[in-house]
Amino acid sequence: MSELAGRIKVIAFDVFGTVVDWHGSVMREVTAMNLEVDASEFALAWRAGYQPAMQEVMDKGEWIILDQLHRRILDRVLADFGRDDLAEEQRQHLNRVWHRLDPWPDAVEGLTRLKSRYLISTLSNGNIGLLAEMAKRAGLPWDCILCAETFRKYKPHPDTYLGVARTFDLEPAQVMLAAAHHGDLEHARNCGLQTAYIERRFEYGRDNPKPVAPWDANTLHCRDFIDLAEQLGC
Amino acid sequence: MSELAGRIKVIAFDVFGTVVDWHGSVMREVTAMNLEVDASEFALAWRAGYQPAMQEVMDKGEWIILDQLHRRILDRVLADFGRDDLAEEQRQHLNRVWHRLDPWPDAVEGLTRLKSRYLISTLSNGNIGLLAEMAKRAGLPWDCILCAETFRKYKPHPDTYLGVARTFDLEPAQVMLAAAHHGDLEHARNCGLQTAYIERRFEYGRDNPKPVAPWDANTLHCRDFIDLAEQLGC
Repeated sequence: MSELAGRIKVIAFDVFGTVVDWHGSVMREVTAMNLEVDASEFALAWRAGYQPAMQEVMDKGEWIILDQLHRRILDRVLADFGRDDLAEEQRQHLNRVWHRLDPWPDAVEGLTRLKSRYLISTLSNGNIGLLAEMAKRAGLPWDCILCAETFRKYKPHPDTYLGVARTFDLEPAQVMLAAAHHGDLEHARNCGLQTAYIERRFEYGRDNPKPVAPWDANTLHCRDFIDLAEQLGC
Repeated sequence: MSELAGRIKVIAFDVFGTVVDWHGSVMREVTAMNLEVDASEFALAWRAGYQPAMQEVMDKGEWIILDQLHRRILDRVLADFGRDDLAEEQRQHLNRVWHRLDPWPDAVEGLTRLKSRYLISTLSNGNIGLLAEMAKRAGLPWDCILCAETFRKYKPHPDTYLGVARTFDLEPAQVMLAAAHHGDLEHARNCGLQTAYIERRFEYGRDNPKPVAPWDANTLHCRDFIDLAEQLGC
């Protein structure tokens, strides 16, 4: 393990679901706004709209930032939930909930430990402003914010994974991606990156535990960021 | 002043000369490498090559990062100083001195105080990897690293100054640029940003003090980052 720990220079982190609890945080704000919808279902629907909306943008060769994509989806979800009456100002406020997501309880401590030895960066489909404001509010101690906006491509485009290595003039194998999604890690691995799977059993809420079984192909399998730090000697 | 302090949301900082002492740091490494050249003159020549080389890149509509630009200039300067014999490995090491520049003595404390109230970002012609590695080594507590590489344009292109405002969905007047160079500030002001001039009398070395007289057009004139923090109530 110490050979691995010595080879890696940069750890890049997926953010939504891996670092922060989007489901619980969106629920919290939807409830606080008294939207009179099922807050959990609303959060799930909003997030479920993201993958197809992003694919549509990529297929068209269009480029928009995630804030704009979230807003397009929000307008559809509000209609689906019978809240087409929500005022523009409230839509704008709600759309920025993605800047105000809470970290998982181990995230700040784990990142702080990993930062003592590695350069830690985001690698998210979020935009720069969103990720910087989230980090400031949540105390996430990034050395660097890299994301879809930096590379003008959304994950899983190879330019994003390889972009991290290029940014720091490294070989792909000197970069590790940490994520709670095996698909994201598989794309990173195909680009030559090391991969660490992070269990986030309750990403979709306490009532919707997701399977978190290890995949052998990953370099590391970790309960949380503290476990990742320990496995990497931090 | 409190009205101004309340209006500003983001402070963006020029880096070379404003946050870090490039002249002293390049001298230090040139001396340590025993290059047998006048270390101060060498540092000044390397830096002097930057403006015309950058202009050439912009005129051609070419895009390269500052690490590559620094290397082109370094090769010319080595030839000019009669050190065409320097090995490739040493050139690569020396070129990365720009990742290892030391901060001015007030920089870390001033930025830390400003960070308590504002989102603090770089706005430099340095590339992302350079600025992130410099920050990690020097302890510069940026919330965000924005630079020429982010916007695919070098300062003074308006896309860089306005890009900071766009990144955070702000009006230009909600952003302040802090810099030790009146020209940089003038371009920012023409884009509608607030401006803070920072005195860095010895940017070109102890033997080459530069004039640091105020320009009335700047929003603030500051001795250093502590003074900036105090003027903004931090």
